Amino acid sequence: MPLFLSSAEAGFEAAFAQLLTMKREDAVDVDDTVAGIIADVRARGDAAVIELTSRFDRLTLTPQTLAFSAEEIAAEIAKVSEEDRAALELAAERIRAYHARQMPQDARWTEPTGAELGWRWTPVSAAGLYVPGGLASYPSSVLMNAIPAQVAGVERLVICAPTPDGVVNPLVLLAASLSGVDTVYRVGGAQAIAALAYGTETIAPVDKITGPGNAFVAAAKRRVFGRVGIDMIAGPSEILVIADRDNDPDWIAVDLLSQAEHDESAQSILITDDAAFGQAVAAAVEARLETLERRAIAGPSWRDFGAVITVRDLAEAAELSNRIAPEHLELCVADPDGLAEHITHAGAIFLGAWTPEAIGDYIGGPNHVLPTARSARFSSGLSVMDFVKRTTLAKMTPAALAEIGPAAERLAISESLEAHGLSVRARLDRLNRGEAAE
Amino acid sequence: MPLFLSSAEAGFEAAFAQLLTMKREDAVDVDDTVAGIIADVRARGDAAVIELTSRFDRLTLTPQTLAFSAEEIAAEIAKVSEEDRAALELAAERIRAYHARQMPQDARWTEPTGAELGWRWTPVSAAGLYVPGGLASYPSSVLMNAIPAQVAGVERLVICAPTPDGVVNPLVLLAASLSGVDTVYRVGGAQAIAALAYGTETIAPVDKITGPGNAFVAAAKRRVFGRVGIDMIAGPSEILVIADRDNDPDWIAVDLLSQAEHDESAQSILITDDAAFGQAVAAAVEARLETLERRAIAGPSWRDFGAVITVRDLAEAAELSNRIAPEHLELCVADPDGLAEHITHAGAIFLGAWTPEAIGDYIGGPNHVLPTARSARFSSGLSVMDFVKRTTLAKMTPAALAEIGPAAERLAISESLEAHGLSVRARLDRLNRGEAAE
Repeated sequence: MPLFLSSAEAGFEAAFAQLLTMKREDAVDVDDTVAGIIADVRARGDAAVIELTSRFDRLTLTPQTLAFSAEEIAAEIAKVSEEDRAALELAAERIRAYHARQMPQDARWTEPTGAELGWRWTPVSAAGLYVPGGLASYPSSVLMNAIPAQVAGVERLVICAPTPDGVVNPLVLLAASLSGVDTVYRVGGAQAIAALAYGTETIAPVDKITGPGNAFVAAAKRRVFGRVGIDMIAGPSEILVIADRDNDPDWIAVDLLSQAEHDESAQSILITDDAAFGQAVAAAVEARLETLERRAIAGPSWRDFGAVITVRDLAEAAELSNRIAPEHLELCVADPDGLAEHITHAGAIFLGAWTPEAIGDYIGGPNHVLPTARSARFSSGLSVMDFVKRTTLAKMTPAALAEIGPAAERLAISESLEAHGLSVRARLDRLNRGEAAE
Repeated sequence: MPLFLSSAEAGFEAAFAQLLTMKREDAVDVDDTVAGIIADVRARGDAAVIELTSRFDRLTLTPQTLAFSAEEIAAEIAKVSEEDRAALELAAERIRAYHARQMPQDARWTEPTGAELGWRWTPVSAAGLYVPGGLASYPSSVLMNAIPAQVAGVERLVICAPTPDGVVNPLVLLAASLSGVDTVYRVGGAQAIAALAYGTETIAPVDKITGPGNAFVAAAKRRVFGRVGIDMIAGPSEILVIADRDNDPDWIAVDLLSQAEHDESAQSILITDDAAFGQAVAAAVEARLETLERRAIAGPSWRDFGAVITVRDLAEAAELSNRIAPEHLELCVADPDGLAEHITHAGAIFLGAWTPEAIGDYIGGPNHVLPTARSARFSSGLSVMDFVKRTTLAKMTPAALAEIGPAAERLAISESLEAHGLSVRARLDRLNRGEAAE
């Protein structure tokens, strides 16, 4: 049974605090294994990657077959139905349109001193996207990771995806081809992350690695962080729905289940200002669970980590939501925009009952890679910004240096950094001698 | 003696590749110690923080004296000279003006489908800034970390700074007061990071921790990453100067030394298209080193890690620079803007010989917290963006859902995520029954 709480009851604060810090995943310590795999790939390159792929994926490769050939990709893509292709194309188009608006602007201005200041954005040169194999091989995730990189202008974009026993999802290859991916390697696990970070004879190293993966992939990403950039290490998915009584309990129930079905560790929470409505939604969840294909996953998730919280009013709902800082937040209320004004921490907001969270997973346009585990307090979903970086610009004139240089020299001396001061002083001295050109 | 290389010589590529991967710091493994300190602070709160401060900083504190009082701060600030105060105020004003331009814009638009999409930026609620003690206690770093947070609108901004034997730098407290810092705690090391991340009875937890520190601080930041946001883990400082022969060798020499004096592991590199000019700069460095206050630091840095590279032309200089991806890049050439067009990876560019890097350290306006160790390939300097996060927004209408919902349902089915599809289908079914309200 999910947790039922009411903010009007004694003990609510303690129970809510416990919900906030609830541990949903057992950390698996694979760090030593992963360190060994990375060292092996760094030492032996392709040979190590091929050997590990044979061991873990039961697949015999050569340096020549590490990547899918154009013919293989075409043959796989040909298997995709017309309907699936059209849906994926529409998703790609909408995700691209949304992310194109995120491209940051360069800036340059001249101050009264005559100095010019500004910054410039440039894309990461090469990015590697990890795509899990098996059940978690989601074509939508390929679009969500690759399109922001493509929009940013990343020159070389590659995928590493395990293909256990040689099995590949044709939709993954179609998604790759729709989003400008250059090469798809049949390599997974920590060995894929190591190859992307350090390179092998066949796989050139990249500068940034993104994409979800299992405990081995996550541990490897943590280890190569610094050598390359990485995206967040995502935890299990979460949804918070704030709904008033004027909703169909079944709609809210399927919305809650759409997160619960991802993972037994996923968490679905309903906050409502009507206790009876909360009960009705819980009953609707149970009804749907009877026939849901993934009830073996969604059931435990809902019963172990689900919660229905009754509050006095929607203002209180917003406060609790900000403490949860949910990955996904649905506002199924009469005035969703008004309520959203009070939301300070959330990965993505879905406004109104006609916006089920699943729209954001596939086709809305915004990214579905979002901060989990309360990290929306300090981080954002994946975006074009993850594939660009800023170079700041400064250009002094002799007059500008004469105006602000002495203060820099003074601060350098106060920090006992003499050479810093001298680098300004040497120039000011020439100005004082009247030798300034320009 | 620094390394002298010429791109025209045989063996250059190998020598340059070696320079790129040169290890400048021995990693100190303090991870177990740090794990113990964090566990202790989590378990015992203030008591642990006070005990560790007594042990490491020889300072006896109580919960009441963990933070500086307003009177103590006023008394320390009163010690600052008028000249130092004016310099710091000018720096704060210029840094604030630069960073104010970085505030990202919200967006919201309506598509032809009728759906509304967009995003909204909100500040992190609370940020903690670590300020090292002793020699590395730089007031300029307080401004560079705190002002972007202040500009972002961070509500609560605190500093943790060790004060060994009770000694504090008055300029640090003045910088804190100029940049909107609410509270300064006399706590340093891993215990400060643990207190900021998990909170104690006296120190409320924050959402984001930034600022430089020693190996213990860096290891602690790595460990609390995920619980809170952190900025980059900075390595030793670096400068690359690209200079043609029309420069005063002494100017370039002091610029190179202004990084070398930071740390024996710092790295200063000159690339020039004139071998004789390179020799003249190297000679000027040696001359300056004879009297430089910090020659015991700058000398080893220059001799162990410094390099003078002669290239055929400036285009080649830009190529090599992009492979180095320097933290600081000075372009002391006739057409610095033209050369900057070819630079794809650098933390900060200083355009023209009248812009010594030290201007950027103190007073130019751009941030001096910049990506080191080649990480400018994939990351940016500190900015307002580090203290805000994006919430994406989506609002469907019944008509919009009717138009794009079926594709979402199709993709959900292709990924075997039935409840995702059902959450769309439940709404489409009502539309099909002609019940749509609004």
